[in-house]
Amino acid sequence: MFDSRRPVPPLIPRPLSLTAGEGELVLTRATTVGCHPAVVTADDGQAVVNDHAGAATTTATTTTATAATTTVGAATATDTTGDATATDTTSAATDTTSAATATTGGGDPVEQLGGVLAWLQQALRPATGLPLRESGQATITLGLAGNLGPEAYRLTVTPVGAVVLGGTAAGVFYGCQALLQLLPPAVHRRSPVAGQHWAIPAVEISDEPRFAWRGAMLDVARHFMPKHDVLRFIDLMALHRLNTLHWHLTDDQGWRLEIRRYPRLTEVGAWRRESQVGATRDAPGDGRPHGGFYTQDDVREIVAYAAQRFVTIVPEIESPGHVQAALAAYPQLGVGKEPLDVYTRWGINRNVLNAEESTVIFFQNVLDEVLALFPSRWIGVGGDECPRDQWRDDPRTRERMIELGLTGEEQIQAWFIHRLDEHLTAAGRRLFGWDEILEGDLAPGTTIASWRGMTGAVAAARRGYDVVACPDDRVYLDYRQSESPDEPIPVSIPLTVADVYAFDPVPDGLTPDEARHILGGQANIWTEHADSPRTVDYLAFPRLCAVAEALWSPAGGDYEEFFRRLRHHLARLDALGVEYRHAGGPLPWQRRPGVPGRPDTRQQRAAHIARLVENIAPQEVS
Amino acid sequence: MFDSRRPVPPLIPRPLSLTAGEGELVLTRATTVGCHPAVVTADDGQAVVNDHAGAATTTATTTTATAATTTVGAATATDTTGDATATDTTSAATDTTSAATATTGGGDPVEQLGGVLAWLQQALRPATGLPLRESGQATITLGLAGNLGPEAYRLTVTPVGAVVLGGTAAGVFYGCQALLQLLPPAVHRRSPVAGQHWAIPAVEISDEPRFAWRGAMLDVARHFMPKHDVLRFIDLMALHRLNTLHWHLTDDQGWRLEIRRYPRLTEVGAWRRESQVGATRDAPGDGRPHGGFYTQDDVREIVAYAAQRFVTIVPEIESPGHVQAALAAYPQLGVGKEPLDVYTRWGINRNVLNAEESTVIFFQNVLDEVLALFPSRWIGVGGDECPRDQWRDDPRTRERMIELGLTGEEQIQAWFIHRLDEHLTAAGRRLFGWDEILEGDLAPGTTIASWRGMTGAVAAARRGYDVVACPDDRVYLDYRQSESPDEPIPVSIPLTVADVYAFDPVPDGLTPDEARHILGGQANIWTEHADSPRTVDYLAFPRLCAVAEALWSPAGGDYEEFFRRLRHHLARLDALGVEYRHAGGPLPWQRRPGVPGRPDTRQQRAAHIARLVENIAPQEVS
Repeated sequence: MFDSRRPVPPLIPRPLSLTAGEGELVLTRATTVGCHPAVVTADDGQAVVNDHAGAATTTATTTTATAATTTVGAATATDTTGDATATDTTSAATDTTSAATATTGGGDPVEQLGGVLAWLQQALRPATGLPLRESGQATITLGLAGNLGPEAYRLTVTPVGAVVLGGTAAGVFYGCQALLQLLPPAVHRRSPVAGQHWAIPAVEISDEPRFAWRGAMLDVARHFMPKHDVLRFIDLMALHRLNTLHWHLTDDQGWRLEIRRYPRLTEVGAWRRESQVGATRDAPGDGRPHGGFYTQDDVREIVAYAAQRFVTIVPEIESPGHVQAALAAYPQLGVGKEPLDVYTRWGINRNVLNAEESTVIFFQNVLDEVLALFPSRWIGVGGDECPRDQWRDDPRTRERMIELGLTGEEQIQAWFIHRLDEHLTAAGRRLFGWDEILEGDLAPGTTIASWRGMTGAVAAARRGYDVVACPDDRVYLDYRQSESPDEPIPVSIPLTVADVYAFDPVPDGLTPDEARHILGGQANIWTEHADSPRTVDYLAFPRLCAVAEALWSPAGGDYEEFFRRLRHHLARLDALGVEYRHAGGPLPWQRRPGVPGRPDTRQQRAAHIARLVENIAPQEVS
Repeated sequence: MFDSRRPVPPLIPRPLSLTAGEGELVLTRATTVGCHPAVVTADDGQAVVNDHAGAATTTATTTTATAATTTVGAATATDTTGDATATDTTSAATDTTSAATATTGGGDPVEQLGGVLAWLQQALRPATGLPLRESGQATITLGLAGNLGPEAYRLTVTPVGAVVLGGTAAGVFYGCQALLQLLPPAVHRRSPVAGQHWAIPAVEISDEPRFAWRGAMLDVARHFMPKHDVLRFIDLMALHRLNTLHWHLTDDQGWRLEIRRYPRLTEVGAWRRESQVGATRDAPGDGRPHGGFYTQDDVREIVAYAAQRFVTIVPEIESPGHVQAALAAYPQLGVGKEPLDVYTRWGINRNVLNAEESTVIFFQNVLDEVLALFPSRWIGVGGDECPRDQWRDDPRTRERMIELGLTGEEQIQAWFIHRLDEHLTAAGRRLFGWDEILEGDLAPGTTIASWRGMTGAVAAARRGYDVVACPDDRVYLDYRQSESPDEPIPVSIPLTVADVYAFDPVPDGLTPDEARHILGGQANIWTEHADSPRTVDYLAFPRLCAVAEALWSPAGGDYEEFFRRLRHHLARLDALGVEYRHAGGPLPWQRRPGVPGRPDTRQQRAAHIARLVENIAPQEVS
């Protein structure tokens, strides 16, 4: 039983502290799992586990959860079962978890703990083949601890059992992911693995994330991803302790969300006649229709599935640009009102929404259905890359500008976003938009996705808006992965795993107060050139692993050390069947020979972005 | 609680008998699941359930399982717990299950029952959100019954509980699938469904399959299907109570199985430079590399995953034709020994294996790794569509013919297949090959896949070989689904759902003894024109539902009645995210405008097939 090897540390993300104990916990048929909803704990960082027998899995056992710092004596006095109700424990826990509930939609932590237990059974059973029955006196025990941060966990493994404590169920979930990482990578296979020794080294791990918004943006508008592949992507996010899926659902090239009030959005807008192959302006079309959409039942399923894994889905309905799929369905939304096809080209599109009141109401109605489907505090409305040519050239729009008291076309976009913002704010939600919206006045709660480098992050934080950092030159995972000409349809600048790993969401030059507006960051996965989930795998992994660690761990991680851990982590991706990019470059069948990309140098890209952000740049940054 | 509506009958496949009871079983948080491994039962078709409290879930309770016909008295005498050991029960059960164990790889039925229980929990929990804890006195009880056929089940639902009895664990599994079919289709969603009433109507169902081989052939050589999509396909097969996946792993266009002794088979053979787009000889290539393969770890995972769902995987390693991917990797296997690319065109290929002893040994070595990975009794070696031109024109081959005492090129194929047959037979397995191999002498245990209509089925059965019927004009699911020009890349004859539903694996004109050689049938899904899992969905569903019922239920089903049930079943496929063909034809994005197919009339196809099978046709059939 004793194993003196230093345990392989839990890998992606890195734990804050890991202490190797002696021995290992061997999982056998007798391994049981259980919950102690309010096992509470700890004075000096040493978890003290209440293991009194027979604690029911659904009753709270202690009132000490209310104290942020408890003593060993208090923690061991938990035989006074029944003094607190489950509700008491819940409210105590939620007091300390505003950040986590913001991104997980809240809910009863004790019930969520039961959900984590069911998830853990389902995660451990397929490969191990063990029954892992529920038991009051369990080998693997999950519990809440009031003195931990909302997403923090403490994992203690000894030869007789493992205890996973979290500040909320989310923390427990991340502790369970750490537990899985301590098991052989084959634990991620979906049927029994013969001859595998299932042992967890004795360790103690305390860990918590640096940022509350640890995200990925997935573009399903340019290429639709079937529901089961989205669920798989969510599982892969959760494996990496990412907690926010920014879901880009609509764009010029497709509208993917069923809206019951406006069925043509998907009848017409959910497919296009063909797709551009390659990134150049003269790249040919493939002549092949492409499409698909999610029913509202599908969306509810995906949202709930994500919530069980503590992933919040932040939907995005693009406006007032990137709307040609909607215009194809409802031409009256457009400036010209002429019939349009769903767009079959990539790149910025001149067709935008008109400034009619009816168009505002249309989008508010769309958002009402979105609000009913997505409990997320944030709702994305886009706001990026909206050309103003049509507005400038249209007599009716100029009439509307006079009616609305607007003096320049650029104010139309701000006015439109403002109208959506009012609507979202009235519903208790917060508008989430790309950094272009900084060109207008914004409601105080607005959150900015800073994508054109970090200029938007600085500008927004200084103006008091919250920020999600996703600078294209660090975390745009559609960008080519190396200088090699073998990269499939290479666009923009090379972003290696090391480049991505160096991502820090907090820009230089902010005061501590300003820096508090940086909620975190996310990697963006645009799919113009990723026409199947297989290609998304190639673009996302392993770079998304590096993003996950950059968002979880303290700044300034050592890439060499990360890279050593990553090698081990790739065995997990192999077990999961993730078709990641190998360090040597694309496999032969991951290449796209002859399909033109549009590579830039870093200098070209920087100059281009600098021009774009001129009018939002704070003085000292521009 | 009482619901007087006649329950919707379990749908695909149809139960042999269904009696609506009164009331319904409502699933609540208190619902528990359990196993009674040898609850045994029944005299006159009325299940008698032993529900004595506290029976442990892992101990056998009775010796009455040994009796094929037991009495109620014997069944209720099961309080004599401990008289039999689990092992006794096991051997009793396996005595009656030769057909099922042949296709499920055997194993301890009691342990398998525990596996079914874990599967049922996992199937019911995501959508219902119920804990469904294990309990000795369970709401849903699974048990074995010695008087049922190996894949038969009896499902009894009352307002206080459900009992699923099977002749083996496979039967219990099919009973559980029936249980799922009695629940709302939303049970197939993967996260909690809000506001859903989870109730099972009170019914009694007795059901068992007509055939022991209920299969689908999936071609992953022409287009690779990622591992998780294969697992999903297996789940969809199991949902339809199909039990055999004939896995077409190698062909001219790709070699998908890691063979450790011959790594170039996948290093070189697992990808091709491009793929033909369309079915005509002058169809262009797409210029895009395609590839992928399964590691041996992947295969073990897939095989075990399938086994848990009572699906046997019958692998196929094509020979001596359809081998160009292998020749590209190891040119010394070929007649010309010249360098070849992995084939980028569809259709029959002139490049075949040479007749060297070293080539036989190469394939025997490949089969040795295949045997270690696949416990299936049957191992496919191909044998179809092997042109003889290269053998005829090659001096060295003529030398080999003299050495081997062969007098015609056609004998080379028979000699090669015979050598593989010897190897498989020595390993205790049975050779499975396409009906072309009837042109040679075959070992007694050989099983024939009759694909060129039913001529091969008749010929094989008369010669005493077992048969799996998969006539192209009934169950080739790559064939176009209607006469509509909108069908994507329409090939061969139209096969509608009604056409497929009329499939009967037993050809006319066999004696009862001959007919016993018909093991069953399978649908074949060739993927030249299905370049993604989404297209496989379109080709396979709902036609595969009709195949499943044709193989499970008595002959002569009423299509109109089936079609009504199918409409309800489609709601399940919707919940599962299956992109099936809608009755109105392909959705816009399921079309392939401009890509040439190669449609035939039924007359053209019949004449073509008649020419092909001239030399295997029994006198009275030709």
